[in-house]
Amino acid sequence: MPGDSIGKMFKISVWGESHGPSIGVVVEGCPPDIELDLNKIREELSRRKPGKNKFVSARKEEDRFEILSGLFNGKTTGTPISVVIKNEGLKKENYEELAKIFRPAHADFTYHAKYGVRDYYGGGRSSARLTAPVVAAGAIARQILSRELGIEITAYVKKIGGIESNISYDKVQQSDLSESLISFPEKDREEEILKLLEKLREEGNSVGGIVECVVKNVPAGFGEPLFDKLDADLAKAMVGLNAVKGFETGNGFSCVELSGKENNDEFTMENGKMVTRTNRSGGILGGISNGMPIVFRVAFKATPSISQKQNTVDIDGKEKEIEIKGDHDVCVAIRAVPVVEALSAIVICDHYLRYRGQCGIK
Amino acid sequence: MPGDSIGKMFKISVWGESHGPSIGVVVEGCPPDIELDLNKIREELSRRKPGKNKFVSARKEEDRFEILSGLFNGKTTGTPISVVIKNEGLKKENYEELAKIFRPAHADFTYHAKYGVRDYYGGGRSSARLTAPVVAAGAIARQILSRELGIEITAYVKKIGGIESNISYDKVQQSDLSESLISFPEKDREEEILKLLEKLREEGNSVGGIVECVVKNVPAGFGEPLFDKLDADLAKAMVGLNAVKGFETGNGFSCVELSGKENNDEFTMENGKMVTRTNRSGGILGGISNGMPIVFRVAFKATPSISQKQNTVDIDGKEKEIEIKGDHDVCVAIRAVPVVEALSAIVICDHYLRYRGQCGIK
Amino acid sequence: MPGDSIGKMFKISVWGESHGPSIGVVVEGCPPDIELDLNKIREELSRRKPGKNKFVSARKEEDRFEILSGLFNGKTTGTPISVVIKNEGLKKENYEELAKIFRPAHADFTYHAKYGVRDYYGGGRSSARLTAPVVAAGAIARQILSRELGIEITAYVKKIGGIESNISYDKVQQSDLSESLISFPEKDREEEILKLLEKLREEGNSVGGIVECVVKNVPAGFGEPLFDKLDADLAKAMVGLNAVKGFETGNGFSCVELSGKENNDEFTMENGKMVTRTNRSGGILGGISNGMPIVFRVAFKATPSISQKQNTVDIDGKEKEIEIKGDHDVCVAIRAVPVVEALSAIVICDHYLRYRGQCGIK
Amino acid sequence: MPGDSIGKMFKISVWGESHGPSIGVVVEGCPPDIELDLNKIREELSRRKPGKNKFVSARKEEDRFEILSGLFNGKTTGTPISVVIKNEGLKKENYEELAKIFRPAHADFTYHAKYGVRDYYGGGRSSARLTAPVVAAGAIARQILSRELGIEITAYVKKIGGIESNISYDKVQQSDLSESLISFPEKDREEEILKLLEKLREEGNSVGGIVECVVKNVPAGFGEPLFDKLDADLAKAMVGLNAVKGFETGNGFSCVELSGKENNDEFTMENGKMVTRTNRSGGILGGISNGMPIVFRVAFKATPSISQKQNTVDIDGKEKEIEIKGDHDVCVAIRAVPVVEALSAIVICDHYLRYRGQCGIK
Repeated sequence: MPGDSIGKMFKISVWGESHGPSIGVVVEGCPPDIELDLNKIREELSRRKPGKNKFVSARKEEDRFEILSGLFNGKTTGTPISVVIKNEGLKKENYEELAKIFRPAHADFTYHAKYGVRDYYGGGRSSARLTAPVVAAGAIARQILSRELGIEITAYVKKIGGIESNISYDKVQQSDLSESLISFPEKDREEEILKLLEKLREEGNSVGGIVECVVKNVPAGFGEPLFDKLDADLAKAMVGLNAVKGFETGNGFSCVELSGKENNDEFTMENGKMVTRTNRSGGILGGISNGMPIVFRVAFKATPSISQKQNTVDIDGKEKEIEIKGDHDVCVAIRAVPVVEALSAIVICDHYLRYRGQCGIK
Repeated sequence: MPGDSIGKMFKISVWGESHGPSIGVVVEGCPPDIELDLNKIREELSRRKPGKNKFVSARKEEDRFEILSGLFNGKTTGTPISVVIKNEGLKKENYEELAKIFRPAHADFTYHAKYGVRDYYGGGRSSARLTAPVVAAGAIARQILSRELGIEITAYVKKIGGIESNISYDKVQQSDLSESLISFPEKDREEEILKLLEKLREEGNSVGGIVECVVKNVPAGFGEPLFDKLDADLAKAMVGLNAVKGFETGNGFSCVELSGKENNDEFTMENGKMVTRTNRSGGILGGISNGMPIVFRVAFKATPSISQKQNTVDIDGKEKEIEIKGDHDVCVAIRAVPVVEALSAIVICDHYLRYRGQCGIK
Repeated sequence: MPGDSIGKMFKISVWGESHGPSIGVVVEGCPPDIELDLNKIREELSRRKPGKNKFVSARKEEDRFEILSGLFNGKTTGTPISVVIKNEGLKKENYEELAKIFRPAHADFTYHAKYGVRDYYGGGRSSARLTAPVVAAGAIARQILSRELGIEITAYVKKIGGIESNISYDKVQQSDLSESLISFPEKDREEEILKLLEKLREEGNSVGGIVECVVKNVPAGFGEPLFDKLDADLAKAMVGLNAVKGFETGNGFSCVELSGKENNDEFTMENGKMVTRTNRSGGILGGISNGMPIVFRVAFKATPSISQKQNTVDIDGKEKEIEIKGDHDVCVAIRAVPVVEALSAIVICDHYLRYRGQCGIK
Repeated sequence: MPGDSIGKMFKISVWGESHGPSIGVVVEGCPPDIELDLNKIREELSRRKPGKNKFVSARKEEDRFEILSGLFNGKTTGTPISVVIKNEGLKKENYEELAKIFRPAHADFTYHAKYGVRDYYGGGRSSARLTAPVVAAGAIARQILSRELGIEITAYVKKIGGIESNISYDKVQQSDLSESLISFPEKDREEEILKLLEKLREEGNSVGGIVECVVKNVPAGFGEPLFDKLDADLAKAMVGLNAVKGFETGNGFSCVELSGKENNDEFTMENGKMVTRTNRSGGILGGISNGMPIVFRVAFKATPSISQKQNTVDIDGKEKEIEIKGDHDVCVAIRAVPVVEALSAIVICDHYLRYRGQCGIK
């Protein structure tokens, strides 16, 4: 049964393979009569684009997109928005050798085991290339959330390898992030990370990272227990991203060591609005937003594409050695930042419309 | 839009509130002509039951269930299986004071904000009581997985407070778990945890914990990219559980500090079958099972119900103090163990049937 | 993949078999904070009940229902409403002979072919008994539609055998219907039908009928093209009903003989509101309600359960003769009237909430 | 909530507007490793194409399609198949006057009422142009059904205006249909229809028609009660088609006048296979295929686009007269023939995969 869609009321369906003629997304359920700023889609795609510095993949992705439906005189019509992004500058010749071998820690083997056939160019369907249409769809969701609810979404690199930012989520400055080459909020330690990345790049190696995301101004009430809780749906979206191995909200795994007395956020009133004094829960209680900033983190493993020699097996079950050529991201977490924001927007927009449907608009 | 179901082909819909006359689940999509062992459902419900030792809630839940449909002469008919579990031994008098106040770190406030009305007895819809029908449904899924594929699912407590088991997932003995009062695999350190729990209980406090789960014999090929990946669906199911703040697969968040060279699992052949030499990925690559054991961990926060004094706000926005009465779990992770297993079974059974539908049976 | 639910935002899942301990429905997505009148559920169930006159099945169905969740102090909480209806007064001894034989025009053979096992008591899952929970769920949907939008739903028998009412849908009087034993709007011809039914009953035979349904005060804008059009969803709901062989909206099949000039409804203004001078389209254009009364008809075949001798085949492929015992409906269309109304309410309520979600509330 | 998809396991999502740059469909859930014959897609699109004779719309639709994903070396990969069809030869200048007026019996008004904004060129989203991607998707489904199950689908015009074919569905010859200009199986009466159509065309008028469809070799067991019955899903697909006002299976509305004795199909054995002596039920019992040919009919109203003068209202509520220019289909039923076949294939393919998922492959 197909799993190519996410969202129930604001729903996106992503199609395409890394090296096919193009990739795309169909966005269904977008509210009508909203003026879309196409430049914002362009900007988000540009943030995700590889080749911006030497630690990310050098693939030339122009990410030129076309909107083929659902817009009329610049406004959404409530009908599906079809976005197509050309795959350009592809080199297919590099990939023939991958037809018959399984790269370690990649999805080559599992796609083969499942479907019996796979597009092996550039990872085919399992490529992070497929996050481009997600970013385009997210840029639409963000505009809805921003205009109708004033919601702001900011993600950034929290940790790369062993180097972690000490800046709390509520102290992160957008200006610092804009200046960073790697979306890292602690200016003083950026140099240290850049050195690590340079060293790994020279060795043909890679490293993991953590992305933290903060969503402000989500009203209390979004999320659909028992199973479509807001945090559950964010977890699904994030863990579904390429290379993700972990997800946590609020204080996450570290909450385990706290007692209830230490961990509970007490309620209080602030300007006539219910708030919590602390925000260890990360803005979600019982799977429903409580009006505080939503905070979560996503752990990315090191890019499995490394040029160092590795042992593996080919399609006929023979042991082989492999060295993966080409320029690859040294740390995928960096380029994942706008993707994490985009998926957050999609999930929250979906829950906004679901809320409106069942509970009306108060 | 309702979020009361999980699964697409093997689908469960859970209804009920903590202190209503009963709670239940409708299991749809169960393959027909399978002889169900009702004792296994009874056993699983009994594992989840509170009151087994003094560190878990003392509520008298007999968890007597009735199957009202979908079974004929002991066999599934392919039609919905309706399971109803009586709510027994309820004391409603304790809860009237909760009608107008929001317990910190509970879902009282968010349900109120969302729906404008809520059943406040025993947490109503947001109570962990609702995991009982999940366990019943999981016991059905397990039987299908066990008989048709030989799949085995084992969860246990990995960590409570600051005390963590050092036993690797592949060394955990079922026999050790059976003897443990708290499903903890490292016998020597159980005493230490019991002392911690006793101390917290006396203080009217609570603590968090981590549950680890291992699923063996899942064939390669389960999981539906791009969005319904197997790990993504497990993440959604687990993060949707009461009190969960984090989820990770394989080496999880710790993978961040590893390089690609260190983290990649190399492929090799073993008895004519493709395996990986290590299993850092936790049995899932690109969102699809690779045939290795599936390993994941779930972080539970401390039970928010503590008898110590806390500040909060009432329904009219007035600051109040609250002391929560009654016997509550000192550490919810302990009783969550069979629930984690049940949800795993449900998610994997769903993906098994989805696989059969699209890819056939090879 | 399970097909036991209908509706996406207002969703019902129906479980149970004719002669199991009980049957029921889980209603998900009901807006919160609505005071439910349980008497209206009782009344609707009573309208569907067999045994009211001698032309319908004599089964003693008291249809006592219990609501086990989703209601708190008489108000909906936005959580699933679980309704259970006891199966009472069952005689299982009559059915053993049906275990091994396929009744003509019944679902015995197809359930057997599909699932390999079936509950053969009283038709099991395929029994019209399962329309009772649908009626209960519909009685909830009706209350929402009636209070929030003033929507009124009226169905009645249009035709039985060759005898058709000549009264146009906009002339049908509720008072005439209430007085009719068979929900037939043309008083003068009721006698004629009653005679036909009596004759068929004596012969151990049955006959088909047409039910017409009119829904007033549906605002323009409900329905979700391309595929979840309002008429498409009504068609699905109605054709899914037991014994239904046809569905049509507006002038239906008879429109085929009209030219565009004759068939088009011209627009005009009436009290500042857009209306059509005629209503051949039956209130739906392009799959979306246009504000005019929604009108459709449903064709029911003769009850296949007849006591006359028929040829058939048993489970081992041997030719057999069968005479079906027991009191059965002479014309199922009569008892289907409240079921058609209930399903209409469910479909329209679903589209109302979907409309609110995407388009907001104007 | 979006309604742009149909099917659950074999799922298509259709996007686009009549006069946008292109239209398309994303086909999800297609089984992997199937060699697709693109010529068959081309042929089906060509059958649907307007301008083949003077009684159908003269729009120049070349219907050149591109497949952008999901195919690799000619084989399906199990990932979404994205099909894009260019909109060519568009004349936008004809449509400006339609921006502010509502054509009678068209969806102009209802789209306006629902969304507040609409693409008015050529009917925008509500245009029958959107059946082209459906036909492309259907051509994929047909190949799966044909190869794996030998299923054959044949639709044809049963009636136009008052002229109906007397040839029973089991006597219709594919060769007769191929020779017919209007897919009408009764050669002798084709002339009569052509005269009627010519007369209506000259008058600037149109007329309705009935399409009958026969599906052979569907195994017993497809269809998912209670609500996703095979006939219910066919009804939904067909009634969702442009201009459709009615749907019936087997003997349909005419069954109403028959007694149970007359209407029941008796079972018998034929070459070791269970069959029915007659097929009044149209191959479906209790919502599940019984192995006999599936037979249904779809009623299309007259094209609402007529060049005769009509009264209507404009967007400001002012009464207006309108004469619709351009060449339009005199009878849409004719061009709907391949669309009815395509939708049948999609619905049945969906149920085939659903059957495989739950019941396995026997």
